[in-house]
Amino acid sequence: MAAATRLLLSCPDRPGLIARVSGFLAAAGCNIVDVDQHSSSGGRFFMRLVYEPSEEADPAELQRAFGAEVAGPLGMEHRFAEAGRVKRVALMASREEHCLLDLLWRLRRGELEGEAALVISNHPDHEGVVGELGIPYRHIPVPAEDKRAAETQALELLRESGVELLVLARYMQVLSGEFLEALGAPPINIHHSFLPAFAGPQPYERAWETGVKLIGATAHYVIEELDAGPIIEQETARVSHRDEPGDLAHLGRDLERLVLARAVRAHLEDRVIVDGSRTLVF
Amino acid sequence: MAAATRLLLSCPDRPGLIARVSGFLAAAGCNIVDVDQHSSSGGRFFMRLVYEPSEEADPAELQRAFGAEVAGPLGMEHRFAEAGRVKRVALMASREEHCLLDLLWRLRRGELEGEAALVISNHPDHEGVVGELGIPYRHIPVPAEDKRAAETQALELLRESGVELLVLARYMQVLSGEFLEALGAPPINIHHSFLPAFAGPQPYERAWETGVKLIGATAHYVIEELDAGPIIEQETARVSHRDEPGDLAHLGRDLERLVLARAVRAHLEDRVIVDGSRTLVF
Amino acid sequence: MAAATRLLLSCPDRPGLIARVSGFLAAAGCNIVDVDQHSSSGGRFFMRLVYEPSEEADPAELQRAFGAEVAGPLGMEHRFAEAGRVKRVALMASREEHCLLDLLWRLRRGELEGEAALVISNHPDHEGVVGELGIPYRHIPVPAEDKRAAETQALELLRESGVELLVLARYMQVLSGEFLEALGAPPINIHHSFLPAFAGPQPYERAWETGVKLIGATAHYVIEELDAGPIIEQETARVSHRDEPGDLAHLGRDLERLVLARAVRAHLEDRVIVDGSRTLVF
Amino acid sequence: MAAATRLLLSCPDRPGLIARVSGFLAAAGCNIVDVDQHSSSGGRFFMRLVYEPSEEADPAELQRAFGAEVAGPLGMEHRFAEAGRVKRVALMASREEHCLLDLLWRLRRGELEGEAALVISNHPDHEGVVGELGIPYRHIPVPAEDKRAAETQALELLRESGVELLVLARYMQVLSGEFLEALGAPPINIHHSFLPAFAGPQPYERAWETGVKLIGATAHYVIEELDAGPIIEQETARVSHRDEPGDLAHLGRDLERLVLARAVRAHLEDRVIVDGSRTLVF
Repeated sequence: MAAATRLLLSCPDRPGLIARVSGFLAAAGCNIVDVDQHSSSGGRFFMRLVYEPSEEADPAELQRAFGAEVAGPLGMEHRFAEAGRVKRVALMASREEHCLLDLLWRLRRGELEGEAALVISNHPDHEGVVGELGIPYRHIPVPAEDKRAAETQALELLRESGVELLVLARYMQVLSGEFLEALGAPPINIHHSFLPAFAGPQPYERAWETGVKLIGATAHYVIEELDAGPIIEQETARVSHRDEPGDLAHLGRDLERLVLARAVRAHLEDRVIVDGSRTLVF
Repeated sequence: MAAATRLLLSCPDRPGLIARVSGFLAAAGCNIVDVDQHSSSGGRFFMRLVYEPSEEADPAELQRAFGAEVAGPLGMEHRFAEAGRVKRVALMASREEHCLLDLLWRLRRGELEGEAALVISNHPDHEGVVGELGIPYRHIPVPAEDKRAAETQALELLRESGVELLVLARYMQVLSGEFLEALGAPPINIHHSFLPAFAGPQPYERAWETGVKLIGATAHYVIEELDAGPIIEQETARVSHRDEPGDLAHLGRDLERLVLARAVRAHLEDRVIVDGSRTLVF
Repeated sequence: MAAATRLLLSCPDRPGLIARVSGFLAAAGCNIVDVDQHSSSGGRFFMRLVYEPSEEADPAELQRAFGAEVAGPLGMEHRFAEAGRVKRVALMASREEHCLLDLLWRLRRGELEGEAALVISNHPDHEGVVGELGIPYRHIPVPAEDKRAAETQALELLRESGVELLVLARYMQVLSGEFLEALGAPPINIHHSFLPAFAGPQPYERAWETGVKLIGATAHYVIEELDAGPIIEQETARVSHRDEPGDLAHLGRDLERLVLARAVRAHLEDRVIVDGSRTLVF
Repeated sequence: MAAATRLLLSCPDRPGLIARVSGFLAAAGCNIVDVDQHSSSGGRFFMRLVYEPSEEADPAELQRAFGAEVAGPLGMEHRFAEAGRVKRVALMASREEHCLLDLLWRLRRGELEGEAALVISNHPDHEGVVGELGIPYRHIPVPAEDKRAAETQALELLRESGVELLVLARYMQVLSGEFLEALGAPPINIHHSFLPAFAGPQPYERAWETGVKLIGATAHYVIEELDAGPIIEQETARVSHRDEPGDLAHLGRDLERLVLARAVRAHLEDRVIVDGSRTLVF
């Protein structure tokens, strides 16, 4: 039996969209098993739909027909994705290992629709533990005077490995706009604060100085502006005056792992639609 | 323009249900503005759908046709509800006033799709504050030797007032199966524990004795078995060894108000479908 | 029997402080019933202590002796407060009533160690509901061209009423530095965001535009710089892409009520020590 | 310099206890750096205190003197513990590895005041991953007809390894009262429900059937009665009707890891005092 297919789309809102899309699929012998939809106050329509394709129909032909007969005429942005397909994921990390190891562990367990293809770090520290898991580890130092060369090298590795998603699991180097553009798909980053509060360096120290009563973590797509891309997931945890900056960092590690894992999971399950500077997570 | 209409339905799952329902509505000139659906692992299909009916079509005729052409043949349980229609809500409370006052305040503000029709209490205590809000207050004592008479009196009042939803806002008397049956629609109750833990009397005292680190509150539909009907909403809050039973009760009041308000809101917005002993809250 | 007494103090950290303070009180026949203490990494010592004074000793004399023999030599800032003493609380509010009514209700129930002395608003809207509770309501318009006069009038009222704590329960006018200085004790304000994110006007709209996945509320002492004083309490709640700015405001109202009530409670129970731009909440 | 020392004690409440204890330590040249105390409504006094001992004094002598001069006369249960001392921790696990690996990772990182001494499992599954970390792994099958032999073998291993804390990290075999008694110190167990709800087997399935809107996890000391010992830590997470039992288990794994890690941390930092069927966690 053909695998279930996910269809994500957005277009200007107008009457009849749900009937139009579901009618097309029903007529093609597909069985819709899940549909989630949102009409924004800004007049845009978003939908995530999962269907089991007909045994007889050619999937590629069906998708072409949908584009020609439905998506095109209605001005839809859309994409199809095979449900459950395991994507190749690369991870970049600096010194802190908690997010890196947590994701590698979840990938190995099959908790996420992905497989670890490659780990890149500007430090040699994690080579042993990553190697033990049988995952290629590449140490690419990032000298202050030649960041470009490091990015070029990383880019090549990512391409060779056929990477479909890059996750910055506490990678503390800023990536250039050129790198992001060449990469094609935006990486997912974890920032150790409740954005937009405490963007930039040393968020736990600044949270402590501000005397906040909760700390946070934010997973977001990376854009060239630092710590500013579309937010996928956030969480907070309570702290008190007893917690020094080191305690915040300690408590924050559990938040970061959880928030990043949820964001990566949503992305790999094709649940995220980016709408300008915001996301919809179905 | 006709008001938007909500359609809630459930039936045995089978291919094509979404297309069938949305196709029928589209053919009738209706614009679907919201759809949420779930196929349970038990093989049942549930859907909540909101549509703007066609200007020309007669709503009653459309609903009849849907029943005959779609719901009937597919074995659907279904109901239509006018979106935004203000329902008449009665509240029953005993000594504790926090849930009662909170709901009255939310109803007055227009936060909920309801209006306070009547307050019934087995205590005279709240007459002043409820009267100031211009809401009828009926004190019906519940003598241990004649609970039946009190129930009969309450039932008459609820009927006379055209009540569509009864909320037990910390009403500490057990209602008989006869009362519940005569009432028709099940009341919503707030229980001051995380059910199924601590069903029955004195939940905060028992939570304290057990030494739990979180307390909870549960809003549920009432069935004859005590504290056992389908759960609509729950929430927990952290406590510590410093909190004595009185502190748990104090902290719990904020939980109870919040949980009950959310459950009443979901019910009034026709978001709840009962599935045996469980609920779906869309 | 004399009421229990609270002692709050802070001083440069050094060995023997706890023994010194508790020894003094024990020697004076006092029974320490609660002590909470924190030594900050910055080298400062903070303590909140509750004791039952000796029957025989004169409280004023004991407090004088403590100042002379302990606090003075050790460079302590300190204050004594009678436990459970009901303080006179004034509330200022603009159009939104949820925080105002919630606090008035908690004060009336005895949930807080305070009594509502006065409500001041730049709108006449709440006169009815506040009046029904038997609390003086003063409408002081704040014309853009003469804010000073309004502040002067408010200040006089607060003084006449013997107000010990002013709570800004969604009061949307900026108070001048002169007003704050003349007031003596800083007011507690509720801001409808997770500060430092979204300080200033329209936080829910800006939170929506940023696409955050949690909204927040912050209660803090007011300083002249807008939305920037020492934070007493914060809380967040989950939102999704389905929530428009109006939904955020709706969900936020419950957060605001809870956060403000907790902060006011902590203040009235003498649990808050301000340390520069931060607070300790024992 | 001598390491800081922790003192935990409990006794019948009476005036002057704090002054008595802190006075003794001050007189002995010790510097109290942290004190936390609670007087229960049941009339019992509990305290956790951290002090830096005098350079000159002999710690053993000081502790003896405290027992003779303070603890004895006042009927105190008490114990001293060296702050920061790394304890030897053994873990028992069955098939599920998430709690086991999470704790091993935290122990290796130095997040907890412990070192992994031994892993025992009734399954051979984790031998590879545990071995890679350099930790002894012992597979002890538990045949239904001879559980006693397995317990005896485990007990010997735990003794040989000098284990001070045993953690049941999803170990699905019931331990006998004889084993617990012979062990001396009670193990910490993680149960995948919000106890007392869903004690016993299959808690996620039963949570799903009950239709709860939150799932939970509970870490507790083990007593002979199943899932009933003093609770150390609990947490809950929101679920919805979309989550099938398998989703609850998936979401629950993150809860279980977090709750167990917090409980183990509190225990190793000597923050837990057991009071009958309840705990105080300072």
